[in-house]
Amino acid sequence: MIKQTKTLTLLLPRWIATAVPGEPLLESQGVLVRDGLICEMAAQDEMRWRYPDAERIELADHLLIPGLVNLHAHAAMALLRGVGDDLPLHSWLQDRIWPLERELVSESFVYDGSLLAAIEMLQGGITTVNDMYFFPEQAISAMRAAGIRVCAGLIVIDFPSAYANDADDYLRKGMALRDRWLDDPGVSFCLAPHAPYTVSDLALQQVAVLSAELALPVHIHLHETAFEVEESLRLHGLRPLQRLAKLGLLGPDLIAVHAVHLNETDIAMMAAAAAHVAHCPHSNLKLASGFAPVAAFLESGINVGLGTDGAASNNRLDLLAEAATAARLAKAVAGDASAFAAPQVLHALTLGGATALGLQDRIGSIELGKEADLVAIDMAGLGCSPCVDPLSHLIYVCGREQVSDVWIRGEPVVRMRQPVSIALHELRDRLRSRLPLWQNQLVSQLNRLNRQTVV
Amino acid sequence: MIKQTKTLTLLLPRWIATAVPGEPLLESQGVLVRDGLICEMAAQDEMRWRYPDAERIELADHLLIPGLVNLHAHAAMALLRGVGDDLPLHSWLQDRIWPLERELVSESFVYDGSLLAAIEMLQGGITTVNDMYFFPEQAISAMRAAGIRVCAGLIVIDFPSAYANDADDYLRKGMALRDRWLDDPGVSFCLAPHAPYTVSDLALQQVAVLSAELALPVHIHLHETAFEVEESLRLHGLRPLQRLAKLGLLGPDLIAVHAVHLNETDIAMMAAAAAHVAHCPHSNLKLASGFAPVAAFLESGINVGLGTDGAASNNRLDLLAEAATAARLAKAVAGDASAFAAPQVLHALTLGGATALGLQDRIGSIELGKEADLVAIDMAGLGCSPCVDPLSHLIYVCGREQVSDVWIRGEPVVRMRQPVSIALHELRDRLRSRLPLWQNQLVSQLNRLNRQTVV
Repeated sequence: MIKQTKTLTLLLPRWIATAVPGEPLLESQGVLVRDGLICEMAAQDEMRWRYPDAERIELADHLLIPGLVNLHAHAAMALLRGVGDDLPLHSWLQDRIWPLERELVSESFVYDGSLLAAIEMLQGGITTVNDMYFFPEQAISAMRAAGIRVCAGLIVIDFPSAYANDADDYLRKGMALRDRWLDDPGVSFCLAPHAPYTVSDLALQQVAVLSAELALPVHIHLHETAFEVEESLRLHGLRPLQRLAKLGLLGPDLIAVHAVHLNETDIAMMAAAAAHVAHCPHSNLKLASGFAPVAAFLESGINVGLGTDGAASNNRLDLLAEAATAARLAKAVAGDASAFAAPQVLHALTLGGATALGLQDRIGSIELGKEADLVAIDMAGLGCSPCVDPLSHLIYVCGREQVSDVWIRGEPVVRMRQPVSIALHELRDRLRSRLPLWQNQLVSQLNRLNRQTVV
Repeated sequence: MIKQTKTLTLLLPRWIATAVPGEPLLESQGVLVRDGLICEMAAQDEMRWRYPDAERIELADHLLIPGLVNLHAHAAMALLRGVGDDLPLHSWLQDRIWPLERELVSESFVYDGSLLAAIEMLQGGITTVNDMYFFPEQAISAMRAAGIRVCAGLIVIDFPSAYANDADDYLRKGMALRDRWLDDPGVSFCLAPHAPYTVSDLALQQVAVLSAELALPVHIHLHETAFEVEESLRLHGLRPLQRLAKLGLLGPDLIAVHAVHLNETDIAMMAAAAAHVAHCPHSNLKLASGFAPVAAFLESGINVGLGTDGAASNNRLDLLAEAATAARLAKAVAGDASAFAAPQVLHALTLGGATALGLQDRIGSIELGKEADLVAIDMAGLGCSPCVDPLSHLIYVCGREQVSDVWIRGEPVVRMRQPVSIALHELRDRLRSRLPLWQNQLVSQLNRLNRQTVV
């Protein structure tokens, strides 16, 4: 459950980037937080005078931004960080990820891995994560204990796993899970069919029906590789997006993860349907999947968010770094150094992700009445000097180590770069005591695989 | 002058990546440093017992690597950080960089800008920088005061500047400068004709003669944009690299900066000549220059180093971040997730750069007899867990904030993430007092430019 802040808190940052489209950077404005909500914004001098009893948070060298929304993650895979680096894609998947998942994935693996990811993400300014993995209940438990907001993907895949047997079983378990967490406003849900090539037409149709009935977003890997598109054409006579459209899944609830290999027709279809893209540049580059045409998405009006993907293909759950890469890469891909400019990137980091998850009325921007998911970026260091545009520095200069403070619904989660709640300290200490066990299991499994396979 | 360490220092890192090609990661080995040189490496237990009086540096959770070599920088441009973000290339150059340089560049600008860059680079593990800018003497003075090694580019360009009037004047000033710094082993030199399109045939031929006579590397922007190649074909009937070959500049002394638009013939010519590439992926992406074919360079045997470029096109002088991008990007460009693997990237970060500068016998790897330019990376954090391959984590996980310790020729420069020498603290404090003046000048010049130009 999200705890409610009873007192007034007055944040006094040097600058505020609200992420409201078209709104300029604010300077010397204060943000008043009451009961977890942003209830007033005005000149700092006035706010100090009017609210003498509020807890004051002085952020004299800081840029305040909305909490970052990680629009695509497999949080638990933090425990598989770096297990298949520099391998060709098929070997990465077949010789590393799948065998390791078969041996290791369990309820405790997902709990500990999700907790590990949550702590890393919180310290990097991520306040909401859209997750997709096995045992989603354990992922929710771990991440809510840490305090991060979760959109839990109710995974569907045709293959059996330790978690479920077949598509029906996955869906049934997902629906039951959703019922159990309806009361926590820090949890939302989406349907998460893994990919068009791992889920049958029948199951995808069931997903479409449930999405429409329950107003749930659909989170799916889509057009990640050229091979995926070719195989779909060979097997179904349709591109994956065309197949999803035929099955009733192309609409404003669709979150297309990766969206690397989209042609002009695909882009026009996505835009007309008001579907969303979760852009994961580090994963796309590292697995040699290709280059998503982000500038073309934005030109056509497609809403874009950013995702870290899992730590096995990234290997750092750092959305600010993802944003820096996305901003630079989009320019080279479009051949236009003005493409994906800093304000657009901030939107993708925050309100774009929130909109894809259907949470845009509650989070994603710094506006009156919204929940106070806020991140302060410390720009005092020499590395930020000189500074003629703090928003531009956020994207092209700042690293996540400059995230000094994080609030979720007004509750401080990170202060002075460290987890602030006793609960989070305890969780971290207990996790640290268990990590050597996972490390040992991982090494022993990798030794076994190395004996079996010639990579 | 580089100070000499008189005492014995024993570094005790958990792992060592020596950067010697083919050498595996070392575990639980110690490195003994005497008089600035690496004089012994053996098992830590044995070293502790044999050298009880040595100063011990315990690095229980650390990876020790050679100091990073930044193979292409315009250090002083740190004072122009972020002045032209998200502008098209021609506008970035013509409406921002050139007018600002005309108004602002002076001896004190270069001193302060180079010092700002040096402190940022040192804290990120860069121990050697190959620089190219106006007023190179001020750059050397600032950077040597901070303690970083400099290969000073003796800039040549056909256009007059506050520093010099014409190509002859640039060359004459460069030669005189070189004579004045011959006694500092922390300074080396290269000839730095700006680019084929800004230097005449005659001046390039003079550079070729001086390079051969004095055994100096030649540091030049080359094939950065498609437009540069097209214009050279139109004006000279030759691609820029062909023109340099004709003028006697294609050989083992050539450091081709950017090398984005090289075709197969260009690559074969570069490889046959044993020329070097300074790869600057962040700058190439951000200015929409394109994608350097790094995997093809490595396959053909071309030596590759990494550069940050200047802070106006990057905007963070962070070679570890450059390496992470280079590693990922090369995979997507080659369509092969095994391209530019972590050991190759470490080579590019260290020995590759040192080799391009002709310093490979003194620095660039952790080997007996080499100068002790060393960097410790702290891998204790949760973000590095689990860890099955520290070298892979260095490239795909670690950020420069994990650089805990830096030594140059055995002298500690950074300890526990902070500058360690009193001199460096004083330099930093004095720089901090001057930065508001530069900030004000920059803002006032930008306001003037904004009134003049419609961007």
